[in-house]
Amino acid sequence: MPTLPQRVVPRAVADPDVRLSYAVDASVTRTASPTDFEVVRARDVDDVVAVLEHAQATRTPVVPQGARTSRAGGARASEGCIVLNVEALDAIHDVDELEGYAVVGPGVVNADLKRAAASAGLFYGPDPASWETCTIGGNVATNAGGLCCVKYGVTSDWVKALQVALPGGELMRTGHRTAKGVAGYDLTGLFVGSEGTLGVVTEAVLRLEPAPDAALTALAVFDSLDAAVAGIVALRRDAHRPCLLEIIDRSSVLAIQSFGDFGFPDDCAAVLLVQSDRPGHVAEDVARYAALLASAGAVDVAVADDAQESEALLAGRRVMSTAFEAMGARLAEDVCVPIGRLADFVRGVEAIAERRSVLIPVSGHAGDGNLHPSIVHDPSDADSVDRAWQAFGDVMELGLSVGGTITGEHGVGSVKLPWLGLELGPAELARQRRLKAVFDPLEIMNPGKVFAVEA
Amino acid sequence: MPTLPQRVVPRAVADPDVRLSYAVDASVTRTASPTDFEVVRARDVDDVVAVLEHAQATRTPVVPQGARTSRAGGARASEGCIVLNVEALDAIHDVDELEGYAVVGPGVVNADLKRAAASAGLFYGPDPASWETCTIGGNVATNAGGLCCVKYGVTSDWVKALQVALPGGELMRTGHRTAKGVAGYDLTGLFVGSEGTLGVVTEAVLRLEPAPDAALTALAVFDSLDAAVAGIVALRRDAHRPCLLEIIDRSSVLAIQSFGDFGFPDDCAAVLLVQSDRPGHVAEDVARYAALLASAGAVDVAVADDAQESEALLAGRRVMSTAFEAMGARLAEDVCVPIGRLADFVRGVEAIAERRSVLIPVSGHAGDGNLHPSIVHDPSDADSVDRAWQAFGDVMELGLSVGGTITGEHGVGSVKLPWLGLELGPAELARQRRLKAVFDPLEIMNPGKVFAVEA
Repeated sequence: MPTLPQRVVPRAVADPDVRLSYAVDASVTRTASPTDFEVVRARDVDDVVAVLEHAQATRTPVVPQGARTSRAGGARASEGCIVLNVEALDAIHDVDELEGYAVVGPGVVNADLKRAAASAGLFYGPDPASWETCTIGGNVATNAGGLCCVKYGVTSDWVKALQVALPGGELMRTGHRTAKGVAGYDLTGLFVGSEGTLGVVTEAVLRLEPAPDAALTALAVFDSLDAAVAGIVALRRDAHRPCLLEIIDRSSVLAIQSFGDFGFPDDCAAVLLVQSDRPGHVAEDVARYAALLASAGAVDVAVADDAQESEALLAGRRVMSTAFEAMGARLAEDVCVPIGRLADFVRGVEAIAERRSVLIPVSGHAGDGNLHPSIVHDPSDADSVDRAWQAFGDVMELGLSVGGTITGEHGVGSVKLPWLGLELGPAELARQRRLKAVFDPLEIMNPGKVFAVEA
Repeated sequence: MPTLPQRVVPRAVADPDVRLSYAVDASVTRTASPTDFEVVRARDVDDVVAVLEHAQATRTPVVPQGARTSRAGGARASEGCIVLNVEALDAIHDVDELEGYAVVGPGVVNADLKRAAASAGLFYGPDPASWETCTIGGNVATNAGGLCCVKYGVTSDWVKALQVALPGGELMRTGHRTAKGVAGYDLTGLFVGSEGTLGVVTEAVLRLEPAPDAALTALAVFDSLDAAVAGIVALRRDAHRPCLLEIIDRSSVLAIQSFGDFGFPDDCAAVLLVQSDRPGHVAEDVARYAALLASAGAVDVAVADDAQESEALLAGRRVMSTAFEAMGARLAEDVCVPIGRLADFVRGVEAIAERRSVLIPVSGHAGDGNLHPSIVHDPSDADSVDRAWQAFGDVMELGLSVGGTITGEHGVGSVKLPWLGLELGPAELARQRRLKAVFDPLEIMNPGKVFAVEA
């Protein structure tokens, strides 16, 4: 077992079963959990500093961890590591309504921050699907997105400044609390999305905006994929960006309907969900979106008049993950492609599903091109598992071939690591490792995530 | 004279007087221009690559340069350097209205991009005061802001991806054209604001948004600074952020009125200008802003009904720079402070002006706390010049003491270099130099800017 500094020994998880529960996250992998590791549940920044000081001195790998909702294996324990869980650093230190920011610990749950902002009449944008459980530290680590990104962008658009503990225990501050600031390099952006490979976020200063109105929903059913994509294009060209624009493809609709009757026709090609939250114009926008979708060829369009109807239209979307999981294990894809290539991408995934004999429902954030094909397979059937992983790689290669990226918002983690070089190329991979070395010269931070461990 | 690679010899400026005109930018410094340097006016990316390949091989300093509008001395030539001017790389390669971005060369003038976007019904946010002349490459290099940042943020909020030529001539790409992407570190943010110390931007992919409405203006006159700040606070708390919120202090008003009669009362303490461009709500917003400013204690409020009146209300603001320059030379400050400390900062500047016996009109982007005190002095009077530079440092130290930064949007350049360590501290300065070395190991990129030249 790795050794621990005296200060955090009382924070170590003693029970082996409990410890093992901290070895995994929400990702599906083919790798067994490690047997030799420690889990430290930090209570404050000094605990984090103590672990990073000790880890550097003893060259012990450190795996930073929040709520373990990563679908990319970014928070999984590795052999010989100290898992450094920061969920307990969950204080909302400040919500400054005048300057427009919140100062929070990395363990603050996304939804709790949203609620704290709302009670001050303000709004924090990023809303990963796991928003009721995922933490800000993980959101920062993966540059998390969510359903509202089509209008509100991703986590990096909302992070003003960070406090980060580095290997060796140094605390560094990045960014500015002021609205602008260009004194020196912008290291905030470098840390956002760095997946725990540079240091551990111990505090984040997050931008807040005036709150929008409560959203309303329209739902449109299409009997052809091309018509659905035409609808997406029409909405992208509207003068008022929707705050949500989701697609559910034929295969996803079938999965949802086999789980329960959510009113979708069995033979549709795709369903689009769209929302507006524009102050004073919600109903008007949603009606206009519905008309645009009808013009694009929707065979059925429903528009919510109130919050209850709005929620009812989302019901099918909300059970989707559960419906997929009822069908088998699921590799979660996270490719982001240009809007203009959405149809090519969805058709390409259909071809991969057929070629690999796996089921791949496609759903996701159509408005920003970030799709989440779900590769459903039978985990007890080695051949099914093999085919699923082959399809997993195929989907990423397809995404790259249409001008996309292998990961829009989940991160590379451990499960996409073999494909990162395909996107970045060897020169860029080498450069990024040299950058990492500026902060983590001994390569103790989250080794085996994002970049391969050096032989 | 530094040597040049054969390819760019025809692009070198032969005339010594013309060459000398490329040695300076819009900054005031106490440093004489260098005598030994070359100026290359690149015509394409290959020219840039050739210069950076040759410069690395010969360890020749390179000063990247656009329209030379820097007020911080970021584009000034240094002894023995090659000035690499990229103004001619001014092609707008693409305006993609569906994906929502433009692909441009670094020499594209900010206003030209705005016009190209507008003709596609789209909008590019950042609007430095020099927008009719400054170029995108320089905007990226300094993370430029402008008047609309209170609503639309700064350049980094609009840069999706970059192509950068590195020392040695390697072309690297950062970022993503897709809406999201977290494959590897975000190097786009690192290059934005790096002031030419890492490489030369050869192409930028810039986010475009649906265009807002044409803005209307309200102008409010205050007889106390506290009332003006109360007005700013009230507007910050409104549910709809203004797209412009400028302050002109007593001393600036006097300078404007001594230049011509723009209708300001001589005895006012401050003037605020505020605009809305919110689609469908411009007149309503501006009327509400005017009412908020009256409630905050404005002694006079004027509201524009149309574009012509709007422009008339801005007339005084527009001549302000000229009015200052009619009074003497001017050191342009660029401190950004918290909104809650604006009054303390303005009073502190008044005290500095008195202590140093210099005139310091304060104006700027009140809505985001980014103020531009102008230290007006007599360049032919050595004592006046000395006192101006002392005040220049005092203002930055004051800004830091109220939780601000030494530069909001102009950059450190050469004129603020001595104060960067005061803001960042020695450990952070050293770290940022190590980061620079990953891209520029021989320190040929813009030496003497941002960071001191090593002894």
